[in-house]
Formats: sequence, C-alpha cells, structure tokens
Amino acid sequence: MSELTCPEDCFALANAMADAARGIIRPHFRKRLAIDSKADSSPVTIADRETEATMRRMIETAFPTHGIRGEEFEAHQADAEWVWILDPIDGTKSFISGSLAFGTQIALLRQGVPVLGIIDQPITGERWLGRIGHQTVLNGEPIHTSPTTTLGEAIVYTSALEQFDADKRDRFSALASSGLFTRMSHDCYAAGLLALGGVDLLLESNVFDYDILPQMPIILGADGVVTDWDGQLLCDASRYETVLMAANEELHRAALVQLRKR
Amino acid sequence: MSELTCPEDCFALANAMADAARGIIRPHFRKRLAIDSKADSSPVTIADRETEATMRRMIETAFPTHGIRGEEFEAHQADAEWVWILDPIDGTKSFISGSLAFGTQIALLRQGVPVLGIIDQPITGERWLGRIGHQTVLNGEPIHTSPTTTLGEAIVYTSALEQFDADKRDRFSALASSGLFTRMSHDCYAAGLLALGGVDLLLESNVFDYDILPQMPIILGADGVVTDWDGQLLCDASRYETVLMAANEELHRAALVQLRKR
Repeated sequence: MSELTCPEDCFALANAMADAARGIIRPHFRKRLAIDSKADSSPVTIADRETEATMRRMIETAFPTHGIRGEEFEAHQADAEWVWILDPIDGTKSFISGSLAFGTQIALLRQGVPVLGIIDQPITGERWLGRIGHQTVLNGEPIHTSPTTTLGEAIVYTSALEQFDADKRDRFSALASSGLFTRMSHDCYAAGLLALGGVDLLLESNVFDYDILPQMPIILGADGVVTDWDGQLLCDASRYETVLMAANEELHRAALVQLRKR
Repeated sequence: MSELTCPEDCFALANAMADAARGIIRPHFRKRLAIDSKADSSPVTIADRETEATMRRMIETAFPTHGIRGEEFEAHQADAEWVWILDPIDGTKSFISGSLAFGTQIALLRQGVPVLGIIDQPITGERWLGRIGHQTVLNGEPIHTSPTTTLGEAIVYTSALEQFDADKRDRFSALASSGLFTRMSHDCYAAGLLALGGVDLLLESNVFDYDILPQMPIILGADGVVTDWDGQLLCDASRYETVLMAANEELHRAALVQLRKR
C-alpha cells in the first residue's frame, strides 16, 4: 500500500456531498416529519433516507469502483480498496426535536484506514474536516484539542447511557464522577467539540462504523486520541463495543486507568 | 391588582438587556475561561458575572424601584411590585463545552406573576419571547407547541438526572421509558424547543426561580402547560422541587397519571 493520503478529487466529492446534504436537510428542520423506527428502534425520517440516497448517487457517478457503507441502506462493493462511510443524520433524535446537536457524517477509508472525515452541521453551517496528514479544520480554521491532562478537570460527554450495558454503565459513571462534569445527547457534535477543545473526554458504547469512523480523522488531526476502553486502536469494523476519545495522551492514560478499576 | 400586562417600556428594556448579553457573551464563546464553582458546585465564568452585572445596571437605571433576583448576585428590592429574574447563562456547562444548548434567560414578575419571559441564544441569534396576553414568538414568528397527545409518541427532555433524588429519578425513568425517546443536557434550550413543537414533555427537579420563571410565559403563550409533578400551578418561589412542562393539556394529564404511579 502506498502512502496514505486523501486524493484531491475524493476531498472535493466529500465537500460536495456535505453541501448537497445541507440542501436536503435544511427544509426538513423543525418541520413535522413522519418518524419510522429501524430494527434497533432508533428513529429515521425521510430526511435521513433522501440525504443518503443522494450521497450514494454522487459517489457512484464519480467513483464507480468505490464501496459504500451507510446507515440507511445496504452496503455496496464493501470489499473495494476505497470505501465511503455515510451517516446522513447522526443525532436523528436531536434533529427531530429541533436541537442543533446533530450532523451529517462522511468518512473515506482506504483499505480500512480512515483518510478523511467530515462532521457537517447543516443549520449552523459548521463543517469539521479531518484529513490524514493535515491539521483538522472547522470552517477552514485549524483547531486543537484541549490541554487538560487531569481527570478532575475533564469535561466528559457521552451520547446516551441507554446504549451501555450494566458493567459499562458502572465504569462510565465512575469515570464521569471523577471528572469536572458530564453532558449527554450531543452525538457527533460532541466529537466536534472535543476536536475544538471544549470537551475533554468522549465515551461511547455499542456504536456503529458510521457513528465513529468519520470522527477518527477529525480527532486525530486535532491532536486527540481514539481507542477502545482497553487502549486498543480501532480497526475497521461494523460495530464497536467501546470507544474512548481523549484530548491528549496524558488524559487518555488517566481515563484508561480509571476505566480498568472494577 | 389591575389587568396583568407587560408595559411597553419594560418589554423594550428586556430586549435591550438580551442584546447587551449577546455582546458580552459572544466574545467568550469557545475561548478558554477560568471556571469557578458556586456553593452548589455548578460552574460559573466571568461571562456569567459580567452579563448579569450589566443587566442589573440597565434595570437600576431604567426602573430604580424595580426588584432584581439573579443567579450570580444577591437579591435587590425583592419585595417590589415589579421584579426582574435574571439568568445570564442558563446551561453554563454547555457554554463552557462549546455547545449551543444554552441561553440568557430574563423574566419580569408583577406581584409574583411572570408577565414576560425571554430565552436568548447569543450565538445563533434565536430569541424566544413570551408575553402575557400574546402568542409566543421566536425571532418575531408566532410558535405553537406540538399536537402530540399520547405518551408513547412523546419526546421527553430533562436537563440532568443528577438533580433528581432516587424517588424522582425512578418516576422520571418510568415516564421516560413510556415515551418515544429521551434527551438531556439542553437546559433552557429544551424549553424553547417545547414552545416550538419539537419537544413534548420537559421535566425538571431541584431547579431555581431563574431557571424556570422565564420559561413560563414562553410555554404558556405557545399553548403549553406548566405545573409541578402533582399538577399544581407554580407560585413564585426561589426553588422548585419538581416542574412538568407539557405541549398540551391532554399530554399533561397523561404524564401526571404516569408520574403518580409508584
């Protein structure tokens, strides 16, 4: 495998897809939508499906050999060298409620390694862009994670405790109570805030590839750390039992020590 | 007591205070701030204190006989006929994290009855305005709560479970699990979303006057209902053990029935 980069034409397509997603999602924001439930009982709307269908068509037109894995439809050419990961609306519950704590997520993997990640907030116009070999940017401005290295000063986020089993909930709660404070219900927006230095630790459990892989280049390119709760790097997989994102290595080590206590 | 209204000059002052708050808060957003802890261990920043001090000066200049109760400083002329309630940053934890789920809250009470309420989001420029005898507006546009009347379809919000004692946490959890889904960590922004029809039920416990009173005219003027968990109207008080806000009377009744189950 040659050096890992994100080619310019792929980078341009990713931005074009995020632009297209904005155009589809914005008219549905704060309008009453029919809400369906998926197999895992998470809600989905016409905005989720229309957005992903449009992004898929754009990929198939530009790069017919590329693979696609998305939240709303079946995988397409999943064993291709280049695979796109799509989450049209990460934080559908926030979106349905009218909250701004949601976003469109896009990743590009080369042989399983994320080389590009986007979190795009369609209403505020915030776009986080992580690209391997580059500093992460928010609307073009380079951003950095927080310098907080001690658990006691750490702002801890998670999407929802419902996704944790009893053991993980206990371990999360012990970590959270040793932090400065805990907030929830921000989904991908919390990863954006971690890259920006506002959030220090982000813990998730039972999440999918489309939830996490777009966030990896964003966090890493902003000088953060991403592993599971045992400190192992995340390989390409369809589902992750635990994810730990930290502002820096020292805080990451402190969080792992706390998570290992039973 | 004559008919309850909000005089034009008070209405103008409230808007001018919210404008001033924006000017003070915006430069501090997503900047690293010194964080102090108050007696109840909630965080407070220079932005909280500067904003409230400015709003207090504006009131004392315009209406020297009016009272003031705010989050950050001592009460002033608290037994006056007209009393202002100020929360410079409701959702300080979100503000510190860089999240948009916070706002400036202002209420005006006449003999203990809220006649005006503002929730202002200084970054997005959203301003919810509730005024007794008027339909609630968001940036000038009239808004209405949701038509959802059944618990099973209800979107349930609360600020944070940490504020609930064990009994109330159980009652909240039972209600939440009979709803469509639950989200947290939005503070006053959740009340704005309830007035807008995105959130159906908002439950709080152990909250203060400055947390809740500004939201009352906003929810009531958008056709919602505000009581405690026993269905009693909220009188003027410095602290509320329980608060239940509902999109409409039918949903409010259904929520009360569920909350009474032990």
